[in-house]
Amino acid sequence: MRLAVAGIGNNISALVQGIGFYRQRDSSEQLPGVTHPILGGLRVTDIDVVAAFDVSEAKVGQPLSEAIFAAPNNYPELGTLRLTEDPEVVPGIADPDDKQQIASVTKLLRELEVEVLLYSLPTGLPEVARAYGRAAITAGVAVVNCTPDPIAGLTELRDEALSQGVPLVGDDLQSHLGSSVVHGSLLALLEERGLTLSGSYQVNMGGNADFANLRTHGANKEASKHRALRQKINHTDRVTVIPSAGFVTHLNDRKVAHMSIEARGWADMPVRLDVTLQVQDSSNAAGVIIDLVRIAAIARRRGETGFPVAATSLLKSPTLMEDPLRQSVNAREFLASLASENAGTAEKSEPTD
Amino acid sequence: MRLAVAGIGNNISALVQGIGFYRQRDSSEQLPGVTHPILGGLRVTDIDVVAAFDVSEAKVGQPLSEAIFAAPNNYPELGTLRLTEDPEVVPGIADPDDKQQIASVTKLLRELEVEVLLYSLPTGLPEVARAYGRAAITAGVAVVNCTPDPIAGLTELRDEALSQGVPLVGDDLQSHLGSSVVHGSLLALLEERGLTLSGSYQVNMGGNADFANLRTHGANKEASKHRALRQKINHTDRVTVIPSAGFVTHLNDRKVAHMSIEARGWADMPVRLDVTLQVQDSSNAAGVIIDLVRIAAIARRRGETGFPVAATSLLKSPTLMEDPLRQSVNAREFLASLASENAGTAEKSEPTD
Amino acid sequence: MRLAVAGIGNNISALVQGIGFYRQRDSSEQLPGVTHPILGGLRVTDIDVVAAFDVSEAKVGQPLSEAIFAAPNNYPELGTLRLTEDPEVVPGIADPDDKQQIASVTKLLRELEVEVLLYSLPTGLPEVARAYGRAAITAGVAVVNCTPDPIAGLTELRDEALSQGVPLVGDDLQSHLGSSVVHGSLLALLEERGLTLSGSYQVNMGGNADFANLRTHGANKEASKHRALRQKINHTDRVTVIPSAGFVTHLNDRKVAHMSIEARGWADMPVRLDVTLQVQDSSNAAGVIIDLVRIAAIARRRGETGFPVAATSLLKSPTLMEDPLRQSVNAREFLASLASENAGTAEKSEPTD
Amino acid sequence: MRLAVAGIGNNISALVQGIGFYRQRDSSEQLPGVTHPILGGLRVTDIDVVAAFDVSEAKVGQPLSEAIFAAPNNYPELGTLRLTEDPEVVPGIADPDDKQQIASVTKLLRELEVEVLLYSLPTGLPEVARAYGRAAITAGVAVVNCTPDPIAGLTELRDEALSQGVPLVGDDLQSHLGSSVVHGSLLALLEERGLTLSGSYQVNMGGNADFANLRTHGANKEASKHRALRQKINHTDRVTVIPSAGFVTHLNDRKVAHMSIEARGWADMPVRLDVTLQVQDSSNAAGVIIDLVRIAAIARRRGETGFPVAATSLLKSPTLMEDPLRQSVNAREFLASLASENAGTAEKSEPTD
Repeated sequence: MRLAVAGIGNNISALVQGIGFYRQRDSSEQLPGVTHPILGGLRVTDIDVVAAFDVSEAKVGQPLSEAIFAAPNNYPELGTLRLTEDPEVVPGIADPDDKQQIASVTKLLRELEVEVLLYSLPTGLPEVARAYGRAAITAGVAVVNCTPDPIAGLTELRDEALSQGVPLVGDDLQSHLGSSVVHGSLLALLEERGLTLSGSYQVNMGGNADFANLRTHGANKEASKHRALRQKINHTDRVTVIPSAGFVTHLNDRKVAHMSIEARGWADMPVRLDVTLQVQDSSNAAGVIIDLVRIAAIARRRGETGFPVAATSLLKSPTLMEDPLRQSVNAREFLASLASENAGTAEKSEPTD
Repeated sequence: MRLAVAGIGNNISALVQGIGFYRQRDSSEQLPGVTHPILGGLRVTDIDVVAAFDVSEAKVGQPLSEAIFAAPNNYPELGTLRLTEDPEVVPGIADPDDKQQIASVTKLLRELEVEVLLYSLPTGLPEVARAYGRAAITAGVAVVNCTPDPIAGLTELRDEALSQGVPLVGDDLQSHLGSSVVHGSLLALLEERGLTLSGSYQVNMGGNADFANLRTHGANKEASKHRALRQKINHTDRVTVIPSAGFVTHLNDRKVAHMSIEARGWADMPVRLDVTLQVQDSSNAAGVIIDLVRIAAIARRRGETGFPVAATSLLKSPTLMEDPLRQSVNAREFLASLASENAGTAEKSEPTD
Repeated sequence: MRLAVAGIGNNISALVQGIGFYRQRDSSEQLPGVTHPILGGLRVTDIDVVAAFDVSEAKVGQPLSEAIFAAPNNYPELGTLRLTEDPEVVPGIADPDDKQQIASVTKLLRELEVEVLLYSLPTGLPEVARAYGRAAITAGVAVVNCTPDPIAGLTELRDEALSQGVPLVGDDLQSHLGSSVVHGSLLALLEERGLTLSGSYQVNMGGNADFANLRTHGANKEASKHRALRQKINHTDRVTVIPSAGFVTHLNDRKVAHMSIEARGWADMPVRLDVTLQVQDSSNAAGVIIDLVRIAAIARRRGETGFPVAATSLLKSPTLMEDPLRQSVNAREFLASLASENAGTAEKSEPTD
Repeated sequence: MRLAVAGIGNNISALVQGIGFYRQRDSSEQLPGVTHPILGGLRVTDIDVVAAFDVSEAKVGQPLSEAIFAAPNNYPELGTLRLTEDPEVVPGIADPDDKQQIASVTKLLRELEVEVLLYSLPTGLPEVARAYGRAAITAGVAVVNCTPDPIAGLTELRDEALSQGVPLVGDDLQSHLGSSVVHGSLLALLEERGLTLSGSYQVNMGGNADFANLRTHGANKEASKHRALRQKINHTDRVTVIPSAGFVTHLNDRKVAHMSIEARGWADMPVRLDVTLQVQDSSNAAGVIIDLVRIAAIARRRGETGFPVAATSLLKSPTLMEDPLRQSVNAREFLASLASENAGTAEKSEPTD
C-alpha cells in the first residue's frame, strides 16, 4: 500500500520504525501491540511510505530514514528500520494560499501513485490542513487526518471528496490507550456502581513537541478532553483536566498521566482510586494510524467514497451520520469483518482520479 | 421491612450505622453513596433490624447497638445510630447438627414476623450456612447470603425454598467497588484496545477479621478472584492475584489494593498502568447488601419464589438460569424498574409460611 | 502569649482551630502532630490571638471566629474553636504609603500589649510586608513573617529592630512536611548511594488561594523550589519542578504532590521511585508557625534582639550569620534546649517599647 | 583482580554482565550506576572471575558465560559479556561435612591464585557458608559474604582468619537502593519534622528465586527488615513489613515495593506519603558487591587482616568493633580515601598463605 506522509514528526518515526520492527518477525508469530494484524487483507507490513512532505530545514532534503531522527523529534531509535523505499523529504505546503505549492503536492501524489495521504502536522494550522486535504482530493488520494484541525469535518472538502470518489478519514486520532479513555472508563464504572463522585483530576506531562505546544494551546485541549469525558459520565463539573502541567524534558516522547478519583460510598465513607498511566506517546498514536491508513486504502480500492464507518471508534471527532448509535454498532461490525479477511485479498486498483 | 441478621460483624455495623446516617438527612436530599434510593417502593431508611444472632460471648446478650462495636469488629463509630428497635443479640446456630438450635432460630423468625434473614458469618462455615438457610426457609423467611459458603447454590435448599414459596438470594456479595471489578475493567479495556498484556498483579491488604482469615483461607479467595477476572479477560495466566499480602493492623476495616498492569503497544513499546484502590471494606459490602435485602423482601411480599433475577449483577455466584446472557440483560431491566417505583408502594404482606 | 495576626487566611484558621483542638485535650496526653509541646516554657495552648488585621470586606468587622471561615478561606471547620478572646477583625494596611494606616496598627499593637505580630498576607505584596514590619518594630513588637516577601531580610528594618530591641523572625516558612523536603531527601539519598539520576519531576496541585495565585506567580515559586533542592543535591538540571499544575477546586486546602525519580543502577539498569504526598496545606504551615511565634515571644521576653538562631531550620530564607554551618548546628541545640524547659517558666514581661 | 564465585545465581549474572557493560565504554566516560569508579586503585573493569563453584546440574560443567543464564536465573541478557576468562563451573561444596569437598575448593583457589572468594548461595545454608569460609581462609583467600548466613560473624572463623592474615568481609549485603533504606529514611524524616506516625506498611514483590524462597523463609526476613528500621526510627510497632507478598512471575528479577505512610499533623490533620520503588533486584546487589570485592582485595594485598572498616556501611550485619559510632565515621573516611586513589596504584601481591 503506497502511503504519503505530511509532517515528519514522532508519529511518523514511530510508524515506520514499528513497521520495520514487525517486518523482522516471522509472519506466523503474534505481533505484540498490534490490534489488527490484518485489515481488509492488508498486513501491517504491507504499508510503504513512498512520499514525505515537511517544511523544516532539518528534514527537507534528507532521506526519510534520517529525517525521522531530526530534532525536535525524540521518539527512541529502535534500530528496526527496514524500509523498502527511502524517499527524500520534499518541501510541503508552507503557505496555504500559494496555489503552486498545493499543485506540486498534487502532482507528486499522482506521479508516485499514492493511495493515502496521512496528515500529521503540529496542531494549530487549520489552513495548512485544508490545503493538504484539497491537494490530496484533487489527486484522487484518500486522506487520513491525525489532528484536530478539521479536514473530514469541512463540508466544503467533504463535497469535493464525494464528487471525486475519495474517502476522507478524520478528524483527530484516538490514542491506543490514552488518559481520556482510562479516566473516563473508571469514572463511568464508579457511576455505574452507584458511588457518588466527590472530585477527580487528571494531570498530564510529557517532553515532546506536543507538550511544548500545549503550554500555549492548552485551553483547546482541555475543552476537547472534557468533551471526551462528557460522552462517558455525567458530573464532569467535578472533574479537573490538566492536559499539560508542563514540559518535562527527560520524559522525551513518553507521556505520564496522574489521575485521582475521590468518591463517597455507603454511609458517606471515602473511596479513592489513584492511577498513573505511562505510555510512549507516539507509539500510542501509530498503533491507531496503522489501522486508519489501511481502512482508507481499502475504501479507496473498493471505490467507496465519503467517511468509512469502520474508522468511527478510532477517531475523536469522526464524521457523524444520522444515527450515531447505529453508526457505532456498525463500525464495530465493519471493523471485525475487515479484520477477518485473509492477508493478500486486498484488491489493488489504480488511483481513481 | 423487618430484617434479621446472623453474624454481627463489620458488615452489620456498616449496615445499621449507614441506615442511621441516611435517617439523619432530609428525605429530599440526595443520598451520597447510595445506588438506589428506592427499590420496589422501599427506601433505604425503611429497613429495621428486628433480630440478631451470634455465638460470640462478647456479643450475645448485648443490645445490637453495642454488639456492633465489640471486638474484633473495627468499622468506625460514626455516631449516627438511629435504631427504631435495638434487639438483644441472641445465641444463633453454633452446632449445625443440633436441631434444637435450628428450631429456635425458626421460632424467633416467625414470632418476630421477620421478612428477610441476612446471613453474614465469617467464611468457611458451610454447614452453619446451610443450617441457617434451612431455619429461614422453614419459617417462610427470605434469605440473603453474603458469603461464598453456599445457600442459594444448594439444590436441596433451592427445592425446599421453592416448595415453601421463599426467595433465596445468593451467594457471595459483589463489592460496591472492589479490586476485582476495577482490575478486570482495566484489563478488559487493554484487551479491547488491542494492546498485548505482558503481566499484571493485584495485591490486597487490610486489617479486619476477613484479612486475618485470609492468611489461612487465601487459596480459595485467589481462585474466586481469578474466576471473576476470567469473565472479563482472556489471559488470566499472565495475572497474579494476591488476595491478602498480610494483615496490616492500622488499616482496621479499610482495604488497600495495589494493581499494576504492564503491556506492549506499537513497536513493542511499554505501556504501564499503576492503580491503588482504597475503600472502607464493610461500607463496600453494606452498599450492596442494602439492595439485596430489599430485593429479597419485595420478592417475598409479591409471592415470587426462587432466585430474584434482579439480584444477578450484585452477586459473585448468582443462581444461573438456562440463558445467562439473557438473565443478565433482564437483571438490569428488573433492577431499573424496581428503582423507578415510588416510595411507599411496597405492599406489605404477611409471612407466607 | 499575646499574638496579633495580619491576614486572616487559611493559615490563621488552621492556627486558631488547632490551638482549640489541643485545648480540648487533657494536658497529660500526647499532642498529635505537635513537634514541641513546650518551647521556652510556653505551651501550644498558651497562645492567644488578641488582634486581627485584614482588608477584605468579608472579614473586617467580623469576629475572628467567623472571619476565619469567610471565602476564599477553605480550611475545614473542625468544630474545635476554644478562643479565650474573640477580637473583631480591624482594617489593616491597604496602602503602604499611608502613614496613618501604619500608625493605627502600631497604636493598636501597643494598646493591646501584643508581644508578637504574625505577618501572613498573600504573597506578592512586598510594600505591605515592609509597612507591617515597621508598624510592629515601632510598637516594640516582635515579628514573624510567613511569606517570601522580605521583612527580616531588609537591612533597613533589621537596623531599626536592633535599635528598638525587637526580634525579627523570617522570612518564608518551611512546611512541616512539604514536597521540597521529601523530594530533596530522596534525591540526596540516591546521590549518596551512588545511583545516576536520569531525570525527575515534582508536580503540585491544590485548591486554595495560594494555588490560584501560583498560576500567575509560578515562576518565582519554581525558582525558590529549585533553590531549596540545590541545597541538597547536585544535578538540579535534571529535575523539573512544577509548583502548581493548576487549580483543582475539590482539593480545597489540601495539597497533592506527585514526584517521580528515574535513575540508573549497576549495568545501566533502571531504578524508579514514584511518590505521592498529600497534606492539609495550612496545617502544614500552622505546625511550624506555632514554633516560630513562641520563639519570637521568648526572645522578646528575654530581651534578645535580632534574629533568634533557634528559628533557622524552620524558615526557607532565615537571616544568615557569618558561619551558616555553625548557625545550623547552634539552631538545633537552642531549639532542643528551649523544648526541654518546663511549662510555665516563660517569664512574661511588659512590652519593651 | 582474581575473583572466585560460589553460587552462580542472578547476582553473579548481574556482576559479570555489568563488568562487561563498563568494559564497552570509553575509560574517560562516566559510569552510570557506579558509586566508586575506582577503589584503592582498582577499576570496576579490573575484576576477573577466574573460578566458579555451584552444585546445580544445569550449571556445573558449563562455561560461566552460559551458566549465568541457566534457570532459575532470570536476570536479563544484556549482550554485554566481555569476559577475559570464561572458567568452567566446577562442583562446589554440596555436603559441608565432606572434608574432601572443602579441600578441593581450597586447592583450586590456591592453584588459580584467587584473591577473593565471593559467597553468594541461596539463603538458609549456614553450614555450607561456614565450609566455604573455612576453605577460603585455609587457602589464604579473602571472603566476601553476600548472605545473612554468618561467615564473618562466626568467632571461630574470625580467629582462624586473623591467624592466617585473611580479611573477612560480611555479613549480608546492603542493597544499592532498597526498600528498607527508602522506607526508613522517610519514616525518619517524618519523625524529625515532628509529625505523629499513625501507621505504615511496606510490601515487596518479585519473581526471582529469592522471592520463591521467601514464601517459606519470610519470618526471618521480616525480623531483619524490622531491625533495619529500628536503627532509624522509634515507633516500629506502628510499621508492618511484608518482605514478600508472593511470587509474581512476570516481574522476573525485578522487585517492586509499595510503601504507605500515614501520619497526623497540626490539628490532627492527615498526612500521607505513598511510595513505589522499582529496581532490578540483582543489579541492586551487584552495585554493592563490586565495592566489597575490591575492598577485600585491597585489604589482602596490603596485608590487613580482620574486618576492613571501609565495608561497614555496605553490609547489613557488619562486624562491629568497640565503638560503632566511631567505626561508622571512620568507614566513610576510609571509603572516601580509597575512592580518591588513582587507578593502577593497587599493588598486586602474592597470596599470603
